[in-house]
Amino acid sequence: MAKSPETEHPNKAFGWAARDKSGVLSPFHFSRRENGENDVTVKILYCGVCHTDLHTVKNDWGFSYYPVVPGHEIVGIATKVGKNVTKFKEGDRVGVGVITSSCQSCESCDQDLENYCPQMSFTYNAIGTDGTKNYGGYSETIVVDQRFVLRFPEGLPSDSGAPLLCAGITVYSPMKYYGMTEPGKHLGVAGLGGLGHVAVKIGKAFGLKVTVISSSPDKEDEAINKLGADSFLVSSDPRKMKVAIGTMDYIIDTISAEHALYPLLGLLKVNGKLITLGIPAKPLELPIFPLVLGRKMIGGSDIGGMKETQEMLDFCAKHNITADIELIKMDEINTAMERLGKADVRYRFVIDVANSLSPP
Amino acid sequence: MAKSPETEHPNKAFGWAARDKSGVLSPFHFSRRENGENDVTVKILYCGVCHTDLHTVKNDWGFSYYPVVPGHEIVGIATKVGKNVTKFKEGDRVGVGVITSSCQSCESCDQDLENYCPQMSFTYNAIGTDGTKNYGGYSETIVVDQRFVLRFPEGLPSDSGAPLLCAGITVYSPMKYYGMTEPGKHLGVAGLGGLGHVAVKIGKAFGLKVTVISSSPDKEDEAINKLGADSFLVSSDPRKMKVAIGTMDYIIDTISAEHALYPLLGLLKVNGKLITLGIPAKPLELPIFPLVLGRKMIGGSDIGGMKETQEMLDFCAKHNITADIELIKMDEINTAMERLGKADVRYRFVIDVANSLSPP
Repeated sequence: MAKSPETEHPNKAFGWAARDKSGVLSPFHFSRRENGENDVTVKILYCGVCHTDLHTVKNDWGFSYYPVVPGHEIVGIATKVGKNVTKFKEGDRVGVGVITSSCQSCESCDQDLENYCPQMSFTYNAIGTDGTKNYGGYSETIVVDQRFVLRFPEGLPSDSGAPLLCAGITVYSPMKYYGMTEPGKHLGVAGLGGLGHVAVKIGKAFGLKVTVISSSPDKEDEAINKLGADSFLVSSDPRKMKVAIGTMDYIIDTISAEHALYPLLGLLKVNGKLITLGIPAKPLELPIFPLVLGRKMIGGSDIGGMKETQEMLDFCAKHNITADIELIKMDEINTAMERLGKADVRYRFVIDVANSLSPP
Repeated sequence: MAKSPETEHPNKAFGWAARDKSGVLSPFHFSRRENGENDVTVKILYCGVCHTDLHTVKNDWGFSYYPVVPGHEIVGIATKVGKNVTKFKEGDRVGVGVITSSCQSCESCDQDLENYCPQMSFTYNAIGTDGTKNYGGYSETIVVDQRFVLRFPEGLPSDSGAPLLCAGITVYSPMKYYGMTEPGKHLGVAGLGGLGHVAVKIGKAFGLKVTVISSSPDKEDEAINKLGADSFLVSSDPRKMKVAIGTMDYIIDTISAEHALYPLLGLLKVNGKLITLGIPAKPLELPIFPLVLGRKMIGGSDIGGMKETQEMLDFCAKHNITADIELIKMDEINTAMERLGKADVRYRFVIDVANSLSPP
């Protein structure tokens, strides 16, 4: 018989978990594995609340298995390192992102694309290499192979830097891969949430002209004056959308609800690129004419490899890029999730884990 | 009042035209413009029958205006050249493809991408720069600005070479643009018709491993033994499709009927590229998960610029690539169109214009 989450590993751990598709989180006792030769044990300081956390606790995609301790935007302090660990020492500030293991020997892993390794494991709601279940960062500690631990650069705040570990790399990686970093080019960012607001900042740091495309006219002032976008396009205004046809080189589409691609493709110039990062529950409609007649493309991307994630953190530290956050206590998570579901957050909740999580 | 097609230009011309959406073609008297300073007058020898010709005579896409003289895979002899024409002399063997004019001054034109110029005109079913209607290659002669005339390389047969002017460039250009020419990589060709069979040959010439993906098991022998494909995958066989998951680097999707993209995307490896060249009447379903989780992309492409079309013709001449054709007489066109609609042709009809078209 399988051991209980509390007894399967030697080290006691505590966090908050969802138990069913109601998605309600509550205190949860479990355990963490012994720190292995290649492992780093991390005392968690902060953990961002990603939209994926919400999808998973609610089982929106149909592959959640409970209990789920979410959280994959983790910043903390290394408190123990295995004897083979060369990259980190005790006391280092470190980050843990969306994945915590991979086969380390396939073509993808050899190319520093652990995120596309067929045996890659997510930080939570997945089975790790030892066959036990992974629990995420809404918890006191986590034990992770050093390959999947990031150096958190000096100058990058632990709280507002945490969301970069998912939101940051998710927009940074496709911009690099699909060649969307040419200074002076025009980037559209569709959807101004957790991903979108970071995309604006990273786009500006690459020297792009950035236009936010949003259905909420009330975000205009903030998009321009706070986030630094060059302009704002209300997607529900047909007249303004028409004027903007054929003006953009790239679009990062962060909209996770079902939506029409046709108007977005129309905004692109010839050779334009649309990168889709949200994952709507149903397939979208793909109009072929604009792809063919304008040599346009639609590409996907899923976070990034560990090397590129480190590069992104260093890039953000250099350019003073952080997420705009609302810092919450652990016991505020259920309200935060509810607000996240209504897109009522500017722009990322981050849990102050170290100061608000304590076993009862 | 607008002049009639027969009197608007000084030079009498004769061809076959469709008069309405029945798509039936019949003899048609019209006229061609005087050969201008930059023009080449071409006596037409052969003209390929493209699937676009069929779509247009039937008004499948809703923007046909009759009478329509189709034909944009034209090979002939230059019989007159304007005083500014430097590229050609009388007696040269030349080709005319899908477009015959563009603004020649925009960003696209400056980059030799006349095919994406907003003012580009198609060879037929379009208005030319002088404001009169363009008639295509199912006719005795055509008058074309030298920029849109191709040198037809020595060694390339006029009849079986003609379809390269559309089918050839349509597959060649995206392979170059999207980086699908790395020797040893695995190309899937979905749909084995006019475009698909040329894609197999061009793919092999680039040194790729080529697999034909088709719903017709009876094409296997021909695909491999006649066209030179390395393997054949029956798309209606779930067992074989499953084995082939994640094995292809690129797919050229030439299917013009509505079809599912999901199984094709599944055949691609991480970083795989699917190029869609057929234009189904309705949008296709775009599943987002495989795009995101495998960093896959879907791109479109529309023929190619004139410089690249010349490059493609030279490439095909060098590699002995031609279309497999059925040569027909002009008055066999209606039967041919009917057969084309049922995909009953291996793989392109070409009209022997010079030997079968004569005014009554």
